[in-house]
Amino acid sequence: MRSIHIGVIGAGECSPEAEKLAEEVGREIARNKAILVCGGLGGVMEASSRGAKQEGGITVGILPGISLSDANPFIDVPIVTGMGHARNVVVVRSSDALIAIQGGYGTLSEIAIALKLGKPVIGLRTWEVSKEILTVETPHQAVSKALRLVSQ
Amino acid sequence: MRSIHIGVIGAGECSPEAEKLAEEVGREIARNKAILVCGGLGGVMEASSRGAKQEGGITVGILPGISLSDANPFIDVPIVTGMGHARNVVVVRSSDALIAIQGGYGTLSEIAIALKLGKPVIGLRTWEVSKEILTVETPHQAVSKALRLVSQ
Amino acid sequence: MRSIHIGVIGAGECSPEAEKLAEEVGREIARNKAILVCGGLGGVMEASSRGAKQEGGITVGILPGISLSDANPFIDVPIVTGMGHARNVVVVRSSDALIAIQGGYGTLSEIAIALKLGKPVIGLRTWEVSKEILTVETPHQAVSKALRLVSQ
Amino acid sequence: MRSIHIGVIGAGECSPEAEKLAEEVGREIARNKAILVCGGLGGVMEASSRGAKQEGGITVGILPGISLSDANPFIDVPIVTGMGHARNVVVVRSSDALIAIQGGYGTLSEIAIALKLGKPVIGLRTWEVSKEILTVETPHQAVSKALRLVSQ
Repeated sequence: MRSIHIGVIGAGECSPEAEKLAEEVGREIARNKAILVCGGLGGVMEASSRGAKQEGGITVGILPGISLSDANPFIDVPIVTGMGHARNVVVVRSSDALIAIQGGYGTLSEIAIALKLGKPVIGLRTWEVSKEILTVETPHQAVSKALRLVSQ
Repeated sequence: MRSIHIGVIGAGECSPEAEKLAEEVGREIARNKAILVCGGLGGVMEASSRGAKQEGGITVGILPGISLSDANPFIDVPIVTGMGHARNVVVVRSSDALIAIQGGYGTLSEIAIALKLGKPVIGLRTWEVSKEILTVETPHQAVSKALRLVSQ
Repeated sequence: MRSIHIGVIGAGECSPEAEKLAEEVGREIARNKAILVCGGLGGVMEASSRGAKQEGGITVGILPGISLSDANPFIDVPIVTGMGHARNVVVVRSSDALIAIQGGYGTLSEIAIALKLGKPVIGLRTWEVSKEILTVETPHQAVSKALRLVSQ
Repeated sequence: MRSIHIGVIGAGECSPEAEKLAEEVGREIARNKAILVCGGLGGVMEASSRGAKQEGGITVGILPGISLSDANPFIDVPIVTGMGHARNVVVVRSSDALIAIQGGYGTLSEIAIALKLGKPVIGLRTWEVSKEILTVETPHQAVSKALRLVSQ
């Protein structure tokens, strides 16, 4: 059976608090044998990938640019789109559920696309633009909620 | 000199109020000799295109699907992307400024990309997610603000 | 009724011979009231756009980069995709028929996508990779063949 | 160090001969600890993925459609682009070298993009459109040539 894909979305430059949350989200995803999907760059993307690798998980980075070497060092499978922000749609479509951690306008665009497509969005200190975003307090809650919603 | 491109974003199915606003926005864009760019489908997109054609303007529809015939009847130049929601990024990138009229999650994704790219976003009864969205009350105000910001 | 869209594909840097062919193809497209669609940059794209404008035609340039100002000076409607070579697919999908003039690997990719999608491809001194490419000798023949095939 | 990505391109419906070649190419890629990248669907894509899994390799499928379940059963990491043929560019960009096995127009478009981007293209009974395509006779030769060119 195919592994569950959990997308982690958040800014490429982030606060230490977001980084800590992201790293623990990554660890939780890996402990649950899900694949972590992200945008492949720094900040929340890098911290969550690092967490996933600490627990032996698999990480996929869907990059906006044109070079495989743009990926952060914790990405196992870099995907090179060369499509800039249009890659945000690919991050969302390739995820069964998404966990948003803080984040700026790029993250907001991903949240919006996910809600448009009817994908579960779990929020950790992120944009509050819709009641359809499931707000949680901890990385553990975020990942267990994501997994529960996907397996329904 | 190249014409100014004003993007009009909003839902494919919309309220009569949004339709009325959109039609008048389209008329104002055409009266000012700007090109109207939109997603090419129904609702706000169709109403604004209809308005622009009433005043002899030019309309561009950047379609998500794979057929030229998806365009509403008021589109002069249909662009067929075959890329689904990723076409939202093309709508934003092809516009010098954007006017958002009400709208759902698709519109929110376009607002977010526009703010990310630093493009002016003028809002008419739309998402209030950022102080960078310039809220106005009338179609006339929306178009004149858009034109003023672009020509600066 | 919607205007016919003729795509003109060829290299961004080209021989004087290709440039002359492209310019005349552009003129023929405009004389026949069709819209010229191209990749918006130099070489064959610029020469064909220049020809179309000489005859009062309308030109659409679907750009690979992120700036409206990448368009050559003869483009009426620049579309900014920010998607690099993936924009080749948009050029093909947005055209009812395509005229290929010489061209390198980028042009070959567009010919291949057009044949895959079952769009008519007319060839002027271009890649000979398939009997489905309709080879012609002159710009006049190219445009009249394209128009005949589209209106069938 | 990052794993090498070998792209395998070919038709979604293929001859028994192409299937046999593709399966052995997949096995060779996995034996050499490279990651197999493909379009994720049937034919050459499925046969090569099956071969890679027989040898315990990792397979990535970059899908044109909108559903994770479009992937063939041997794909470990499905990427959902929702972009149709534009995903061909993502397959090429995400590969360090490409092996083309027979193939139709879709494959030709990928070969053309790869040559445009300067990526090594190894051909097994495929399109002969350029001397830059490195023609080989066996799956073993194809994979060892690809690996040699990438590590240079």
